[in-house]
Amino acid sequence: MSSTSEFQGWVAHDPSAADGNMQWGGYTPKTFESTDIEMDITHCGVCGSDIHTLRSGWGPSDYPLVVGHEIIGKVTRVGDDVKDLKVGDRVGVGAQSDCCEGCKPCKMKQESNCNSFTMTYNAKYPKTGDKAQGGYAKNWRGPAAFAIPIPEGLPSEFAAPLMCGGVTVYNPLVTNGAGPGKRVGVVGVGGLGHFALLFSKALGCDKIIAISRSSSKKADALELGADEFIATGEDPEWMTKNANSLDLIISTISGSFPMDSYLNLLDVNGTFVQLGAPDDPLPSFSLMGLIFKNLKIAGSLIGTRQQISDMLELAKKTDLKAWVQVRPMSEANDVIVDFEKGLPRYRYVLKN
Amino acid sequence: MSSTSEFQGWVAHDPSAADGNMQWGGYTPKTFESTDIEMDITHCGVCGSDIHTLRSGWGPSDYPLVVGHEIIGKVTRVGDDVKDLKVGDRVGVGAQSDCCEGCKPCKMKQESNCNSFTMTYNAKYPKTGDKAQGGYAKNWRGPAAFAIPIPEGLPSEFAAPLMCGGVTVYNPLVTNGAGPGKRVGVVGVGGLGHFALLFSKALGCDKIIAISRSSSKKADALELGADEFIATGEDPEWMTKNANSLDLIISTISGSFPMDSYLNLLDVNGTFVQLGAPDDPLPSFSLMGLIFKNLKIAGSLIGTRQQISDMLELAKKTDLKAWVQVRPMSEANDVIVDFEKGLPRYRYVLKN
Repeated sequence: MSSTSEFQGWVAHDPSAADGNMQWGGYTPKTFESTDIEMDITHCGVCGSDIHTLRSGWGPSDYPLVVGHEIIGKVTRVGDDVKDLKVGDRVGVGAQSDCCEGCKPCKMKQESNCNSFTMTYNAKYPKTGDKAQGGYAKNWRGPAAFAIPIPEGLPSEFAAPLMCGGVTVYNPLVTNGAGPGKRVGVVGVGGLGHFALLFSKALGCDKIIAISRSSSKKADALELGADEFIATGEDPEWMTKNANSLDLIISTISGSFPMDSYLNLLDVNGTFVQLGAPDDPLPSFSLMGLIFKNLKIAGSLIGTRQQISDMLELAKKTDLKAWVQVRPMSEANDVIVDFEKGLPRYRYVLKN
Repeated sequence: MSSTSEFQGWVAHDPSAADGNMQWGGYTPKTFESTDIEMDITHCGVCGSDIHTLRSGWGPSDYPLVVGHEIIGKVTRVGDDVKDLKVGDRVGVGAQSDCCEGCKPCKMKQESNCNSFTMTYNAKYPKTGDKAQGGYAKNWRGPAAFAIPIPEGLPSEFAAPLMCGGVTVYNPLVTNGAGPGKRVGVVGVGGLGHFALLFSKALGCDKIIAISRSSSKKADALELGADEFIATGEDPEWMTKNANSLDLIISTISGSFPMDSYLNLLDVNGTFVQLGAPDDPLPSFSLMGLIFKNLKIAGSLIGTRQQISDMLELAKKTDLKAWVQVRPMSEANDVIVDFEKGLPRYRYVLKN
């Protein structure tokens, strides 16, 4: 137990931070506990949640705050009670950095649904009441239990965005049986959608269809692993031509969309998983598909530590390369402005 | 192949039939095929679908028609290719009387989601183009493959309403693991809800909660197997008091209801199954529960023949008694008028 040393990072002081007004400076990390580690951050992916939190998009954020929850680095210090990590290890931290270990989801090893989930930033560690701070910074300190070893041979710039974006799609894919014999549709070809295509391919799905409004990202989608591409804004027959052709749809978009038409693409017993932002309600839809085709609609939230480990192993084994643009940590303000313009193809990674 | 003999039954000629204007008279049954049976109908349950179809509620019905799809009777004739039934057997026919046997759901033994499903009435048998006619009648003729043996010892007046109403709730209960260790909520205490309570109990669920607007049916619900009763219109705290307390909710109501509040009752990994009429869209709801608690929303449609057989065995084994009011077939017009008034407690059965 010790330390109030100041860390250095990109600190947000108010919602204008989301417009590129984060300030580089000092901040106080959590109290170092015997179950914590510290790391030198080498890479941190940029996730939509970062910008949403910077601007207080999910309710007032707890400024000052440092965002970033796709963190990769080298362990520099380990608490006395840390058994599984040592100085020098390469680890990653995702969107969750603590759980209660006592609630039903935790006991089921489903800690990503923990009843007192601690997020990696804009949250407080329950034991100490200290703020959790993220990875747009030089260093990170937090629970060793959520620092996950990165397999040797998997480059850090590819590993970083997997820690949140990757597992957010990997979880519903594996939970719903994506693999040989399954046909998967991915709605939206953005940061999450690009991972959904890559992992559907890595998991060996029989057929992968990318679905987007326009065909502007068709070439990318095919290169990412899609077998077919539907441009809903360009082909009025898209729904009827592709009816009953999918077992699983991963929707990475939010706001208003033709839910009934997407349900029509599902074959009997199919599942529609919505990953879009939870502040939007789901578009209205008829029950016909649910009833006559025995369909299910589900949500999903990041993934467990076991899923993150499994995903990293799969990424290494299949040489899965996230499409990332690596930019200096010093340019973080420019990067979030570019992110909001929709420029990443398909994920930015900040590098110290 | 033979026969155009006239059958006698309650014939609907136009939508006014739903107001108690069915006419007793002759009608032409399907052509007798070598795979068919005929039976003397002893009992036929009255289902909400009967009245909905009589009034052309799901689009124009194909008058003249005879409704009724909870049919129990004694086999009086078997076609040359019928192997498993003989004259004198007691059998039941539910809401489905034919399937294609060739589509994916049929090959998966999930024929209740057959792509060319033949309903027991207001439908045509694909091979002959003949109309399918139901059980408000003296006799029934149709495919032996959908005439299911009734276990000895299970009274016909209890078996009849199980053929549609019973299996409609039995299917989602067993599909979603209802049994020891599971906590089930039943929304609506009507025909379907009463079966959902009875079968949740018969399946050995840990906790059964009946949910209704008022407490007028509380005593019935407790007698039917509920451990607790929620009157949503009488207890403003009902949602918070019962949050995260259920694994499965079977909703038997339709129209507008507080979907978000119901989802709030579900614990992590819970499932909400909606059985209400498919012409109503599902009420709008937020995605928070689906995402943070990993919930699922599903529909369900009747059940397979295997499920019907399993359900009948369970009903026999547990001495499950549907709450039925048996009335003479001759009073069918009065009965459907009483049904529409909401009078059944909880299911009418017509008896020849």
